[in-house]
Amino acid sequence: MLWMSIDREKPMSLIRQLYTEIRTKILQGEITTGYKLPSTRSLAAELQVSRNVVVEAYDQLLAEGYIESTQGSGYFVASGIYLEQHARIRKQAEPQPQNIGEEAEPCIDFRSGVPALELFPRTVWGKMVQRVCQEAPASAFGYGRPEGQPELREVLSRYLYRMRGVQCEPWQIVMTSGATQALSLIAKVLLFPGSTVQMEDPITHDIQTIFRSAGATIQPVATDAHGMVMENLPKSPLTTPSFVFVTPSHQFPLGGTLPIQRRIQLIQHAREMDCYIVEDDYDSEFRYESAPISSIQGLAPDRVIYIGSFSKILSPGLRLGYLVLPPSLVKAYQEAKWFTDLHTSTLDQLALGHFIEEGHLEKYISRVKKLYKKRRKCLTDALRQVFGEQVCIWGESAGLHIVASFAGITFTHEHFAALEANGVRLYPVEEHAILKGRHEDKVIIGYGNVSEEQIQEGVSRLKSVFDRWM
Amino acid sequence: MLWMSIDREKPMSLIRQLYTEIRTKILQGEITTGYKLPSTRSLAAELQVSRNVVVEAYDQLLAEGYIESTQGSGYFVASGIYLEQHARIRKQAEPQPQNIGEEAEPCIDFRSGVPALELFPRTVWGKMVQRVCQEAPASAFGYGRPEGQPELREVLSRYLYRMRGVQCEPWQIVMTSGATQALSLIAKVLLFPGSTVQMEDPITHDIQTIFRSAGATIQPVATDAHGMVMENLPKSPLTTPSFVFVTPSHQFPLGGTLPIQRRIQLIQHAREMDCYIVEDDYDSEFRYESAPISSIQGLAPDRVIYIGSFSKILSPGLRLGYLVLPPSLVKAYQEAKWFTDLHTSTLDQLALGHFIEEGHLEKYISRVKKLYKKRRKCLTDALRQVFGEQVCIWGESAGLHIVASFAGITFTHEHFAALEANGVRLYPVEEHAILKGRHEDKVIIGYGNVSEEQIQEGVSRLKSVFDRWM
Repeated sequence: MLWMSIDREKPMSLIRQLYTEIRTKILQGEITTGYKLPSTRSLAAELQVSRNVVVEAYDQLLAEGYIESTQGSGYFVASGIYLEQHARIRKQAEPQPQNIGEEAEPCIDFRSGVPALELFPRTVWGKMVQRVCQEAPASAFGYGRPEGQPELREVLSRYLYRMRGVQCEPWQIVMTSGATQALSLIAKVLLFPGSTVQMEDPITHDIQTIFRSAGATIQPVATDAHGMVMENLPKSPLTTPSFVFVTPSHQFPLGGTLPIQRRIQLIQHAREMDCYIVEDDYDSEFRYESAPISSIQGLAPDRVIYIGSFSKILSPGLRLGYLVLPPSLVKAYQEAKWFTDLHTSTLDQLALGHFIEEGHLEKYISRVKKLYKKRRKCLTDALRQVFGEQVCIWGESAGLHIVASFAGITFTHEHFAALEANGVRLYPVEEHAILKGRHEDKVIIGYGNVSEEQIQEGVSRLKSVFDRWM
Repeated sequence: MLWMSIDREKPMSLIRQLYTEIRTKILQGEITTGYKLPSTRSLAAELQVSRNVVVEAYDQLLAEGYIESTQGSGYFVASGIYLEQHARIRKQAEPQPQNIGEEAEPCIDFRSGVPALELFPRTVWGKMVQRVCQEAPASAFGYGRPEGQPELREVLSRYLYRMRGVQCEPWQIVMTSGATQALSLIAKVLLFPGSTVQMEDPITHDIQTIFRSAGATIQPVATDAHGMVMENLPKSPLTTPSFVFVTPSHQFPLGGTLPIQRRIQLIQHAREMDCYIVEDDYDSEFRYESAPISSIQGLAPDRVIYIGSFSKILSPGLRLGYLVLPPSLVKAYQEAKWFTDLHTSTLDQLALGHFIEEGHLEKYISRVKKLYKKRRKCLTDALRQVFGEQVCIWGESAGLHIVASFAGITFTHEHFAALEANGVRLYPVEEHAILKGRHEDKVIIGYGNVSEEQIQEGVSRLKSVFDRWM
């Protein structure tokens, strides 16, 4: 009756091995209802294991109902267990990664919105988290509140006033897992099938997807080199928009900064429509020609939903962002956050609070800003030197990317494939266009995470490829 | 012309003060279009500040479009800026915290699902994070992939096989911000207005809310002391359910463990209906009478969406959970995660990976399990000693809570208020009932985060209050 195989070299415990063996035999119908198992003593002797091993394996099978025990007469396979095995899951190879997220790549990748990853303040951040682990009250390891830690929101509200002119009390802030979650919460609370959103065109494709998948219709508002053109806002739309969406500090992707006159007009428009403004202030800290421009939120705190993120100014990997809300919306967003993922990691929030409070964030921003300024100059100088009059550059006064067009080139998939084949990656503006066909001449060139050497090399690779078409 | 107030004691820079003063005057209409500002030289002299301060403040106002400069003739207020000030946001007191999430409380709180927070492995976790900060590749600080870090999913798939009998490849796992996000992703991918879900009744109220708010209709399936009763599953429903939702390891709230026969029946039911099973395995590691019971997922990996969480076995504050998916669903969940919040914090994921890989998690579980076993015994002993035959206890073989009923008591809001007034907090099972009116005699008593002293004291407080009604 040697039907059990036990392997002492396996990392699995003997009890577990025995349990698994018997369970498999029952499920596959090898032994069926009423089958009497060997006594614990005889099976232990047979397998040369301690009797306790068999007793525990049987107990487990008993607890799960695979076997039954009758006082004095032993252990039997229970009824109703045989599972007709449908085709077992095949051990498939992992599907090819889709083009979602980041991949390692040997080529020079001018992806936008990625900060200088090699400069992340590893030591300071590590210390902050470790200190939080040591010093936080026990409640920090329990369930938190959906809007986030009060300590962080207090520090953040002061930071936002100081740096961005945002006027808010800490209770108007809801912490999120990055700006993307802020956007999906906005969609959840404000958008329904039939809703309308007025948006800059072009605008980040993923944001369009988030709003559309909530059932909203998007009304594109064409932008120029200064951002949204107010004359293009539909004046008497059939439906009142839920909100107007803008990236006023540094329009994505075109790079303009919305002038104060247009900001005022936008606020007046929102008041006339009785709708909100969603202000996505995604890389506003990186302005090179002058100090950062104050937020629209600071001009009309009752009308503006302000989205901020630490992805560009610190690290996208941390997934830390926030919403600043008009008072009337606070409760709805707290609830939406609760039913989405309860709250954002408490330890990360507390570490961020210390990081800001002790001045590390502002020191870090000023440090990387100098670097980005140099990279920007390196990039625009190289482009102008190599392409001369044939290159036209947009949006260079702020952010982590520029937009460029090259005389005579209308970009198609083939162009990007040819660039890729030559070890350099650019991104089409057209991908972010709502109305298609107007931005096929422009590419996005991010410079946050490429060194000056890579920039030089990248531009010369561009030249060698573009020469075929120019 | 002394119209500017500069305060050298303020924490705000002089440039910022000057900028803010002028900006406010423009926005409030104190100085209007075409108004000529004093020259930088004269204003600097007037305010006794360096000329550079005025130049920088003016530059900022220029950059934002508040003022214009005409070569040689000075600075003027630009047109179109005056903003009619609507009622300014009133400085409101923060609204009273709603009953969402955790609050500090002086009373003995038998809340369920909260682990022993004072035992969180602060030192080890802090070290893990710090090491990740030091050693992770730079890409860890950039954008990650929606399904999470491959290192963690590799480690997790092995842990799940070892501990829970879950059969999956790492690519079938999508990391989430806790089980709640796993649930809301399931709602996003599988539920639409008109969808049907078959669920244990009673079942966690928040889960009902998440599914309902996606538009689904819930079909309650009454449970007994062993979990879902299969005979209660609607056999020929008008609409095919999207999935059957179960908590088989430890039914929430009633505490039963689903026997193998019912698991088999459930799989057969799902195959007949051609629907999925969602298995929420929320505190399966804490089983006291025998080793943990293997998952349903391990019996039918192609049918089961398995939800796991580190909230009960480590800390809810970390917000770390995951989905194990049938191969055909993997891509849809990766996309849903991407458009929800891109991905879960990379550093936290890597720290968790080390924590599991180096055996800390299993060591920790075995340590706290001993504690919970003692607390459970302390609680059930105290209840039986104090209430004798008048108490009936359910679901004590697993988890972090029990359910109890007390002879003659039907719980109402007044009962819970009276308990609260006497410094002890219990939770109604009825709150989690789908069909109301069948569980008003039962309360949930969590013991994960209460000491033995608190348990003793809490039970004696219960006694003093219950004596009025028994």
